[in-house]
Amino acid sequence: MLLPTLLLEIGNHQFEVAETLIQVGRFLVIFLAARTLAEVMVRLSLPTILGELLAGVLIGVSGLHFLLPPDTGVAINDLLLNLVSSLSGVTPEQVQELYTESFPGLQQVSLLGLYALLFLTGLESELDELMAVGLQATTVAVTGVVLPFALGTAGLIWLFHVPTILAVFAGAAMTATSIGITASVFGELGWLKRREGQIVIGAAVLDDILGIVILAVVVSLAGGEALAIGPILKLVVAALVFVAAALWLSGTAAPAFDWLLDRLKAPGEVVVAGFVVLSLCCFAAQAIGLEAALGAFAGGLILSRSRHTEAIQETVKPLVALFATVFFVLIGTGMDLSVLNPLEPANRPGLVVALFLLLVAIAGKVAAGWSYLSKEPSNRLVVGLGMLPRGEVGLIFLGLGTQAHLLTPALEAAILLMVIGTTFLAPLLLRLVLGGEGPAPRDPLEEIPT
Amino acid sequence: MLLPTLLLEIGNHQFEVAETLIQVGRFLVIFLAARTLAEVMVRLSLPTILGELLAGVLIGVSGLHFLLPPDTGVAINDLLLNLVSSLSGVTPEQVQELYTESFPGLQQVSLLGLYALLFLTGLESELDELMAVGLQATTVAVTGVVLPFALGTAGLIWLFHVPTILAVFAGAAMTATSIGITASVFGELGWLKRREGQIVIGAAVLDDILGIVILAVVVSLAGGEALAIGPILKLVVAALVFVAAALWLSGTAAPAFDWLLDRLKAPGEVVVAGFVVLSLCCFAAQAIGLEAALGAFAGGLILSRSRHTEAIQETVKPLVALFATVFFVLIGTGMDLSVLNPLEPANRPGLVVALFLLLVAIAGKVAAGWSYLSKEPSNRLVVGLGMLPRGEVGLIFLGLGTQAHLLTPALEAAILLMVIGTTFLAPLLLRLVLGGEGPAPRDPLEEIPT
Repeated sequence: MLLPTLLLEIGNHQFEVAETLIQVGRFLVIFLAARTLAEVMVRLSLPTILGELLAGVLIGVSGLHFLLPPDTGVAINDLLLNLVSSLSGVTPEQVQELYTESFPGLQQVSLLGLYALLFLTGLESELDELMAVGLQATTVAVTGVVLPFALGTAGLIWLFHVPTILAVFAGAAMTATSIGITASVFGELGWLKRREGQIVIGAAVLDDILGIVILAVVVSLAGGEALAIGPILKLVVAALVFVAAALWLSGTAAPAFDWLLDRLKAPGEVVVAGFVVLSLCCFAAQAIGLEAALGAFAGGLILSRSRHTEAIQETVKPLVALFATVFFVLIGTGMDLSVLNPLEPANRPGLVVALFLLLVAIAGKVAAGWSYLSKEPSNRLVVGLGMLPRGEVGLIFLGLGTQAHLLTPALEAAILLMVIGTTFLAPLLLRLVLGGEGPAPRDPLEEIPT
Repeated sequence: MLLPTLLLEIGNHQFEVAETLIQVGRFLVIFLAARTLAEVMVRLSLPTILGELLAGVLIGVSGLHFLLPPDTGVAINDLLLNLVSSLSGVTPEQVQELYTESFPGLQQVSLLGLYALLFLTGLESELDELMAVGLQATTVAVTGVVLPFALGTAGLIWLFHVPTILAVFAGAAMTATSIGITASVFGELGWLKRREGQIVIGAAVLDDILGIVILAVVVSLAGGEALAIGPILKLVVAALVFVAAALWLSGTAAPAFDWLLDRLKAPGEVVVAGFVVLSLCCFAAQAIGLEAALGAFAGGLILSRSRHTEAIQETVKPLVALFATVFFVLIGTGMDLSVLNPLEPANRPGLVVALFLLLVAIAGKVAAGWSYLSKEPSNRLVVGLGMLPRGEVGLIFLGLGTQAHLLTPALEAAILLMVIGTTFLAPLLLRLVLGGEGPAPRDPLEEIPT
């Protein structure tokens, strides 16, 4: 899928040439667009993930039609179509067909990127930091999850009469905190080692865990029909047990992993051993009825206390840089931003929903900053704003909902606006409150070897 | 393909669970088998690539039936079948069907591994070393390509009455020298910096280029019908021009690449920029009628003189460690080693062919050691034996021939025996000749961060 399948069957040479050109060309368009906009974002002191998302919008259904999920029924960009057709000698109709046929491979690559990203997030979790700020971080995390979820879901159901499943999904998408973006914003402003910074990082770690439990529950719910309590409880228990087992294994299995890794001599052992753990955890999660995504995160948590965790992170980062980019670009691709145009009367109800979600998303997290008890004075506004960016975690929710055809276009766009809004606003507001003018923000991929 | 497609459609939950379990389970079997045997090989002081190949045989058609290309028509291993069936609630027949449907994704991942490996080989090419030993290395390389190819092809046609296309393909598979294995064996024995070592490395670099030109020609030939001179000449010229352009670009485009890379600020820029060059070169090669594989190698050559070449190598190595393993395991998978059983009378002609190929493969390369002029005394046997291992380059030829259904089972097995034989024998014979007892041999992936 990534690169040519040209040699699988030497017989149909023209078709293979065309398919190779389509696949390679599609990758080129994705990376050139995503990187160009990411560079623009860095220069605007904004997270690069926003550039990837906008790149998807630019080359997708709302834009230039280079990147089109098969079910959109739109013809692909003439430039790509005619170039491939003339170079390979295949008719434009056949090029369109080959394009559609080879698209699932691209989606699978994007899921590989998602799992690699969640694995990396688990690997980078600093469990010890969470323990140190303990209760305060837990309070902030739980409040910052419960408030936006409850307010968002209830508001959507009662104020906007959104069906329950959709409202729950949208509410769940509001619970996340992007630990990567949060950590880099605090690091950039020099607040990472202060108490406020420690609380936010600790809460963001816990939020990641809570968010993925919620994700597992919501996705399973969306797969079923009714909102029964039994299956939910079972899933919550399974998810909690699974995460607890991962935390326990991070203390017990990690030394065994290290013992084994020290004895492995065949080259490339670090990335392969990490990938085997990732696969085992995905398999285990899926086998007991949870999401493979939860398995990927749990795999990272287990290895976060390995002596080799940094070496594993280094080998996972190139996978994330390549394939998670595809994931975020694909999210932007399917997004029909025209529903946000306020000049179109039909759009206005959707825009009201978007505004409501954004306000609840901000209010819920900022309020969480006042939820914990502390004898020492602390800047509670900084804590609340630090929890603001939904970033990649919010986008993951959105992407999964989109791929599942669960959301209406208006709700999709509203969630996107909420994610973009909080991710954009957090660095801006924090900089305003703290009066700093730091360097460019960093994102979770910052540490990739250069 | 790599990891679950579970969330693409939330509707068919059972099928997604089954497909995830199949895909993840298949990966686990591949990596556990390949790594276990690679560790055994390291302890026997043999290249790990042999372990990956044997792992494929062990879990493939000739072995446990965990890994089966769709066209073999064999039922998959009962353990995997029943485990997936009972965990997902899907019938065994449906599991078999999902297994077959999702196999092309695995083959595409293996091709990604192949291109990443060729890109890495290009990146690691030390063009300056080749220039220094100049004429001598060129003589050894050309002789070491021409002799095995001519003797092998002619012998197969005249002695064994093999059809011309097959004989040419088998002959081509005998031309390669594995630069990775050669470099690590010489490094291990402390001969890398001696004149013999320099000549062999220089010749192996040139051999890689020649081998890929030959590969491009042979594959295109195999795709057509007749052995016409015009198309061959056109391809040879195109390939030579392409490689020459890559060499020229390595001096001119690399600085431009560095200039650009220095200005990129978004994280993950190294791996993405490298991947874009790789994609551009694959696209260009395919667009002018050459192999994408040649493009991958050329992309590596172009960036081999970048200031960032080592950083790029570091980010490519995890991709190679994961996906090239899949490529080599898949080669072993389809291999029916029972044709090598000498107790079966029908096999004996095939075994005679295998023995003939092995002898020619050894004699042709060893003779190349005596082909160059030198005023200083040099150990010509060491040079010849250094050129011996076919390693991954021979396997790539074999894998492409197998996937193209070009070879007969007996010829496939004979080529495999030739590749395994030369790769096994080179370290053993060199150690015998030099009387050294070095540490475990290394392979091209040695440098992956640990």
